[in-house]
Amino acid sequence: MSPVSESTTPSKVELTDEEIFAGHLGGKLSVETTAPLDTQRALSIAYTPGVAQVSRAIHADESLADRYTWTSRLVVVVSDGTAVLGLGDIGPRASLPVMEGKAALFKNFAGLNSIPLVLDTKDPDEIVETLIRLRPSFGAVNLEDISAPRCFEIERRVIEALDCPVMHDDQHGTAIVVLAALKGAVKVQNRDITGLRVVISGAGAAGVACANILLAAGISDVIVLDSKGIVSSSRTDLNEVKVDLAARTNPAGLTGGTAEALAGADVFLGVSAGTVPEELIATMAEDSIVFALSNPDPEIHPEVARKHAAIVATGRSDFPNQINNVLAFPGVFKGALDAGARRITEGMKLAAADAILSVVGDDLSVDKIVPSPLDPRVAPAVAEAVAAAARAEGVV
Amino acid sequence: MSPVSESTTPSKVELTDEEIFAGHLGGKLSVETTAPLDTQRALSIAYTPGVAQVSRAIHADESLADRYTWTSRLVVVVSDGTAVLGLGDIGPRASLPVMEGKAALFKNFAGLNSIPLVLDTKDPDEIVETLIRLRPSFGAVNLEDISAPRCFEIERRVIEALDCPVMHDDQHGTAIVVLAALKGAVKVQNRDITGLRVVISGAGAAGVACANILLAAGISDVIVLDSKGIVSSSRTDLNEVKVDLAARTNPAGLTGGTAEALAGADVFLGVSAGTVPEELIATMAEDSIVFALSNPDPEIHPEVARKHAAIVATGRSDFPNQINNVLAFPGVFKGALDAGARRITEGMKLAAADAILSVVGDDLSVDKIVPSPLDPRVAPAVAEAVAAAARAEGVV
Repeated sequence: MSPVSESTTPSKVELTDEEIFAGHLGGKLSVETTAPLDTQRALSIAYTPGVAQVSRAIHADESLADRYTWTSRLVVVVSDGTAVLGLGDIGPRASLPVMEGKAALFKNFAGLNSIPLVLDTKDPDEIVETLIRLRPSFGAVNLEDISAPRCFEIERRVIEALDCPVMHDDQHGTAIVVLAALKGAVKVQNRDITGLRVVISGAGAAGVACANILLAAGISDVIVLDSKGIVSSSRTDLNEVKVDLAARTNPAGLTGGTAEALAGADVFLGVSAGTVPEELIATMAEDSIVFALSNPDPEIHPEVARKHAAIVATGRSDFPNQINNVLAFPGVFKGALDAGARRITEGMKLAAADAILSVVGDDLSVDKIVPSPLDPRVAPAVAEAVAAAARAEGVV
Repeated sequence: MSPVSESTTPSKVELTDEEIFAGHLGGKLSVETTAPLDTQRALSIAYTPGVAQVSRAIHADESLADRYTWTSRLVVVVSDGTAVLGLGDIGPRASLPVMEGKAALFKNFAGLNSIPLVLDTKDPDEIVETLIRLRPSFGAVNLEDISAPRCFEIERRVIEALDCPVMHDDQHGTAIVVLAALKGAVKVQNRDITGLRVVISGAGAAGVACANILLAAGISDVIVLDSKGIVSSSRTDLNEVKVDLAARTNPAGLTGGTAEALAGADVFLGVSAGTVPEELIATMAEDSIVFALSNPDPEIHPEVARKHAAIVATGRSDFPNQINNVLAFPGVFKGALDAGARRITEGMKLAAADAILSVVGDDLSVDKIVPSPLDPRVAPAVAEAVAAAARAEGVV
């Protein structure tokens, strides 16, 4: 196994507190007008009396709001601040810089307008109700950094209540990119993805969604670990979400912890804040694949993992194979909005994963199983594939 | 009395439907990033891992959200679409082009960020509750086009519930500009404003607020007309708001309609969708002042009014003396936010009116009692005066 070469390892970006805070002064977003308003004529078109014509037209046919307002290109990034980065429940105000950053990424990578809405309530009923009341104001909802298991119920109910694309990115953005990366890895290894035995460490938002998308992609042997060990039907301490997960995963009925799960496994997928010892990674099957996605500290250092695993990925920009949600969410929402989709289906997510992988093309290698998060080709490719899937599935 | 000269009458802007709808295609607002996100370094500052530092700091001291997020420069324009322009209750979706226009004016005239939030509920409890839940997302609230008398209760309750500037612009924006214009008119005439007898036609949002600000400015003889005639304590058909108004206006205890009110009056202020006959304007006192603000059709054509009145103003851009809210609201909110004010007081509104008038300066004349709505000096002057008043009153 060749060591990670210097040329494929970008140096870690060292940031000072000073430049970070300077970069946030006054916030990171700005609302601009799409046309100048510096003449009486321009004002008369954009505001009174001209605007009355447009309002009258939408009153007569509400579908025209998509055409003559900004809503059909507007994603609201919604959070209650309960599961922010690795910081936990820091509240809506403290979560706002993250949500502004997310909104900035929507503009930067997909050209979509996006505004953060942070809510001073953790009550699922109130969160759902608030979005129902605000429905005429936006075109799509990116739920963000909402703690598990509340996030599952909230997402399900918001999807049911609203006739527009809704996605909890911590779940599905992660899952889409993980699937793309895993498809890239098995392609490098010339293996069949469905035969893999996958161990997922973490049964929160990302872990559950990754299990679901890997099952949907045809992998039958998926094992999920939570803080108590393997999620299995024999356990009596599982919440509703995990009971459901236990019924659909762990076909061999394993019990125990990380050691029992990893022995002979093909894939380790870390989406927890925990660690995994080198000795256990060493017990995995030949040509194993390790995705240690915990941020900023991976479950195992990638250079240590590479001593035992054939392919290693992390969430960090300073090692090869960065698995970052930004590869998925801008294009997924752009595609859904471009197609006028009323929801985001499993088929659209699978199409997004394939599109991400397609961008790597001939560059595919052990150290390049996904494109760079800065690759400008990704979002348009994902958007096109997602829009095509939406049309094919008839959700437009 | 000199006729309106050609030079001071800008020609009416003739707009085609085609150019109006083209001007609204895709909406009138765009969210941009304040710095480019095209390098790994920029991404690491604006998003992970850098943003975690900022979130951590705000979690430790919530007041830092004002400094490191966009909220302290962000005005939400909130409507339920119940009283939109002259169109009435056309609903939230159809109101959106107006709210986008308003948000565009905030940026254009005051450099503030502004986003429209239109609500799919007319219930005052739900509107207030929704804004309470969204409080961490914004810095100020411009309530817009909410029908009377609901607007009075909603504004009062939102002001009570939120520790930030809140103003229903249809009320107070109009009232501020009317007061500025009336002060300009009496200055031209070298009269004392407190001695005027003012008749206000319309007891909706604008009428009630105009009555209040004129009373606050020291005018004791204010008479308000609603669709049934003079609002007086002898009537038994008044709602709560009008009962209150009756107790503070109409000191002579007049009864009857427009004819009884206007005979010998100094000022006619039209803020209804109605009309006033020339014969009644002719019965007003010498050197009378007519503000016919109904839009797009003034209560009386300004050239007809000028046959009898010394000074005439309308809401239209194609006649002299355009009384337009845009002279007030951008500067009022900018001043309140600049000062970090927790609310907008009567003193701040009075200061705004004086600042508007001050911009006219030596140009003051019968045909120029207020600055042009396009005059870029107005909003900064209003903001400075409002901020100074806020600091003087200690509401920061």
